[in-house]
Amino acid sequence: MEINQLNPDIVSVAPSALRVFDHEISADPDIVKLTLGEPDFNVPEHIKQAAIASINADQSHYPYYWGIQELRDAASTYYREKFGYQYTADQIVCTVGATEGLSATFKTLFQPGDGVLIPMPAYPVYKAMALVNHLKPIMIDTTANGCVLKPQQVTDAIKANPDVTIRGVVITDPSNPTGVVYSEDQLAALVPVLRDNKIWVISDEIYGELTYGVQHYSLSRWLPDQTIIINGLSKSHAMTGWRIGFAFGPTGVIDQIAKAHQFQVTTPTSIVQYAAVEALTHGQNDAAAMRKVYEKRCDYLKQELTKLGVTYVEPQGAFYIFMKIPEQCQLDSFAFARQLAKDYHVGLMPGAPFGDPQALRISYASSNENLHAAVDALTKELTKLGVLA
Amino acid sequence: MEINQLNPDIVSVAPSALRVFDHEISADPDIVKLTLGEPDFNVPEHIKQAAIASINADQSHYPYYWGIQELRDAASTYYREKFGYQYTADQIVCTVGATEGLSATFKTLFQPGDGVLIPMPAYPVYKAMALVNHLKPIMIDTTANGCVLKPQQVTDAIKANPDVTIRGVVITDPSNPTGVVYSEDQLAALVPVLRDNKIWVISDEIYGELTYGVQHYSLSRWLPDQTIIINGLSKSHAMTGWRIGFAFGPTGVIDQIAKAHQFQVTTPTSIVQYAAVEALTHGQNDAAAMRKVYEKRCDYLKQELTKLGVTYVEPQGAFYIFMKIPEQCQLDSFAFARQLAKDYHVGLMPGAPFGDPQALRISYASSNENLHAAVDALTKELTKLGVLA
Repeated sequence: MEINQLNPDIVSVAPSALRVFDHEISADPDIVKLTLGEPDFNVPEHIKQAAIASINADQSHYPYYWGIQELRDAASTYYREKFGYQYTADQIVCTVGATEGLSATFKTLFQPGDGVLIPMPAYPVYKAMALVNHLKPIMIDTTANGCVLKPQQVTDAIKANPDVTIRGVVITDPSNPTGVVYSEDQLAALVPVLRDNKIWVISDEIYGELTYGVQHYSLSRWLPDQTIIINGLSKSHAMTGWRIGFAFGPTGVIDQIAKAHQFQVTTPTSIVQYAAVEALTHGQNDAAAMRKVYEKRCDYLKQELTKLGVTYVEPQGAFYIFMKIPEQCQLDSFAFARQLAKDYHVGLMPGAPFGDPQALRISYASSNENLHAAVDALTKELTKLGVLA
Repeated sequence: MEINQLNPDIVSVAPSALRVFDHEISADPDIVKLTLGEPDFNVPEHIKQAAIASINADQSHYPYYWGIQELRDAASTYYREKFGYQYTADQIVCTVGATEGLSATFKTLFQPGDGVLIPMPAYPVYKAMALVNHLKPIMIDTTANGCVLKPQQVTDAIKANPDVTIRGVVITDPSNPTGVVYSEDQLAALVPVLRDNKIWVISDEIYGELTYGVQHYSLSRWLPDQTIIINGLSKSHAMTGWRIGFAFGPTGVIDQIAKAHQFQVTTPTSIVQYAAVEALTHGQNDAAAMRKVYEKRCDYLKQELTKLGVTYVEPQGAFYIFMKIPEQCQLDSFAFARQLAKDYHVGLMPGAPFGDPQALRISYASSNENLHAAVDALTKELTKLGVLA
């Protein structure tokens, strides 16, 4: 039957350009990928053993849709100790990774037509989620302000969109793709304008444990009644493909999100829920070792990019560097990235889906060898294009 | 902030009464549950070993959002051989259980306001999914016709709802909660009216391998261009809590469902995807042994209910008996079920959420001992209420 009778909100949105580009270059068996946002580390052994124990114990039946009690208890304690979150177990829903938490949250908080502020550069899935829920994404360019949203920009966006009820903002902190981390002051500065305008905060803190020399703060500290935190174990415990995350929110709202979640997936995989209990009760330091390695790699890349005369947003967290493609290249981000993939078998993520068609995102959740290959490819390409002597 | 500003489609829908009731009675540590629709069998050993091997092999990275190629290949072959499905791997999306496949399908096929026919009694999640997607569920009572939808009922529903564009129907075959299996003729009879009225078929075939003495057919055989099949390993391989399912559909439509799915969950758990490959390549007969046991239990329950003078819908598949609460009881399904739970520590599912407040659903995916306990409790309760001498 005719595709034009399908839901236009689904039909008109593009599939994630990140996954599609990654899939495209994966056809090359020799490709060195620094594309997707996933740790090259393996799941820590004690968590793997917990998953195996769960399988052997036949814990294969339906967990309650909020997630098993032990896991919500463990998440309550773990994140309180880590970041000062103030949520009891019954204010936490276990989700199929951060994505599912975001999806249930977008679906629950807003009504069709509502506006959602998305500071750019941003992970492109936020915009897609706004669109599939028939919301109006309002993109705010933050590059002039070090990729941090300023209160004045919120006020300006409200004024510039008089016909839209702006009811949400997505804060990704630490940021994907820039690695920028909001300071305590920068977050506190946003509080009055968000409170006065009753703007829901979707606070994506999935990279919260990966900061270098700075502390991660959560907007929920100031705005507990209007913040939904999205977090999970994909990055902190290298469990991307296992798909376990959490949504934290005030009573009355989190219950509604739990419902949306139930009708999306029922519940995350039982095996992974039991493994996650182990991660949160005995894996408090799992991220620390990875963080040290990431930081060294970050330093290496910054140094090499600087040598090449390439500029980038100064990163303080996550595992990305968002670099500018030198103007002289006269190639947009997809063309440049495809060239690197074709000529040197190196995959970097085009910046266009994040909002900057003149940038590339380098993930350094990849081996030193791969990072060397990336630097080498960039050097050769910039030389070929006459940017380097 | 105010809950009345949240999405009214989410706020107004109730959480699944099935899960809530199950959770409620689970507070009793002595409860014998015949409530949820999940096998009491464990995941077959060879599938558990495949999951463990996947963990040990560190296959913990993001699978492609459609699901891994091996799994979609295996699903294409397995379901072709089992039920004659005609779908290539690129017409199959791997989902987080059947629920997520249903959710992505509801979201994709319809536009807000569209009508969706739901033959009753029905699994209540369909109605909830229609409501959260701002659709109009139109319930059709099929009890007078042996719980099978008749073509005339489709025509009548269209006439009775002149202001609604009816664009979908949900067929659950074998049925939850009645265990009714559509015959080849009954399905073929529906084809013209569904084709002529361009009605999408959401064909939930999750119990397809569990039929007793009859064959399962799929409406996709007649209506390949307008059917989305939902299936998965929860029932056939006792993998409920592991959460793996599949959506099958025509090219052009399944791609859109894949997108909706991507923005819901990214992809199902990697471990389970690899384990599912094992299930589909070496577990063709896993369901057979379970089916034999279920059939015996079904026969036992039918015999005992008949002795008690209790009527039920004649089941031919799944693992449920949908029994009538004798009129003389003067208790609705929730009151009766709560009484059984309170007095005899036996949990049966109230029929009201399925559309019949004078019925109970007994799941016989439970041990013989538990079935005896259920029969015993029913006997005592009916005696107490003066229905039995």
